[in-house]
Parts: sequence; C-alpha cells; structure tokens
Amino acid sequence: MIAQVIRVNEILKQTLLYDFYGELLTEHQKEIYGRFVTEDLSLGEIAKEAGISRQGVHDIIKRCSAALSGYEEKLHLVERFMSVKKKVEQIDKLLDGYEKEKDAAVLREVREISGRIIDEL
Amino acid sequence: MIAQVIRVNEILKQTLLYDFYGELLTEHQKEIYGRFVTEDLSLGEIAKEAGISRQGVHDIIKRCSAALSGYEEKLHLVERFMSVKKKVEQIDKLLDGYEKEKDAAVLREVREISGRIIDEL
Repeated sequence: MIAQVIRVNEILKQTLLYDFYGELLTEHQKEIYGRFVTEDLSLGEIAKEAGISRQGVHDIIKRCSAALSGYEEKLHLVERFMSVKKKVEQIDKLLDGYEKEKDAAVLREVREISGRIIDEL
Repeated sequence: MIAQVIRVNEILKQTLLYDFYGELLTEHQKEIYGRFVTEDLSLGEIAKEAGISRQGVHDIIKRCSAALSGYEEKLHLVERFMSVKKKVEQIDKLLDGYEKEKDAAVLREVREISGRIIDEL
C-alpha cells in the first residue's frame, strides 16, 4: 500500500514536470516520454510502437526525467504552481467563511493572500 | 518620445525574460547578460569589466536574448505571469467595490477569477 502511494506520487510528479517543461524536450523525447507519463504502457510496448529497443526507451526516459528535474531545480515552476494553487484554495475557503460570518477581516485576508500570489510567480 | 517608450518596453520585456529564464543560461552568459539588463552599462563598459571584446559582449547578448525568447515561446511564463497579475488586480478592485456596495455577486466574481488563476498556470 505504501509502495503504491509512493508510485502514484512519483507518477503525479513526473506528469506535472512533463506538463510544465515537456515543451523543452525534443520532438523524439516528447513522443517517447510523453507516452510513458500519459499512457499506461510498459517500456516494451513503447519500444515496439516506436521501433526502438527497450533499452533505448529506458535511456530516453532516464535522460528526460533528469532533464525535467533539472529544469525544476532551476525554475521551480511545479513548486510555484502548487503554492499558488494552495493560495487560491485558501481564498475559496475564506470566502465560504465570509458568506456565513460577514467578517470584514476575512476580506482583508483574501486581499493579502491574492497579493502573495504575485510574489510567488 | 515614442522611441523612448518602445525602448523602455523592450528593456522591461528583456528584464522579465531574464527574471523568468535567466537560470537556464550558463554562468558566463548570466554574468554578461545579467549586467546588461539589470545595470545601465554600455557594451564597451561590460566588455572592459569582463575582459572580452565589445563584439564578444554583443554576440553573447544577441544569443542570450534569442535563447530567452525561445524559452518564452515554449513555456509562456511571462505571458502567464502578466495574466495572473491582471487577475489579482481585478480581485483587488472587486473587493474595493464590495466594501462600498456589499453586493454578493462581486464575491462570486472574485471566486470565479481566482479559479481562473489556476487555469492560467
């Protein structure tokens, strides 16, 4: 069960990295790595369809994964996205609360958080 | 006057591109191009301090500028930043209006805009 959760987190992470930096890969890398992260195919299946060896697919995936992680280390887009997403969720929750309590302090907090979104970018 | 405005816009654009993608340049490129966009130095002054030719500085700046624009064409970070910034400004303005009118529709609009921030990323 824990191993499965780790695996799901790993896939989610790789998918996010691909979403953010996939355009920086070559067309060939995108074709192979894109199928790896977005479709549930084995290395053997990808290899067969691409007409290259299983080892070739393995190497491309390893190289792409390292390249995407390298971009994240430099640009932190996924990290920033997660942080902004969290702030937008906070705004939603605050507005839920405001609709019940009508506490003006809540609106100030909304402003404060929306301001911090800009600092995150 | 128009020429000056264009020049200012160009500098602003180059500075934003450097802010977002500068980390993808090499250390040497960052040193030269960083000084070009963040300090008000002539090519000759940068050349002198870096101990390379004026033509060398010119080539690095041209290459960096093309590289940064290439990243923007692929990742659109500056475009997305401008769009999110605009939405946060809209939220602020809506909350200003709400404080006067207390119109619940305004809060729904705030939610709607904050939701769209996520779509932008």
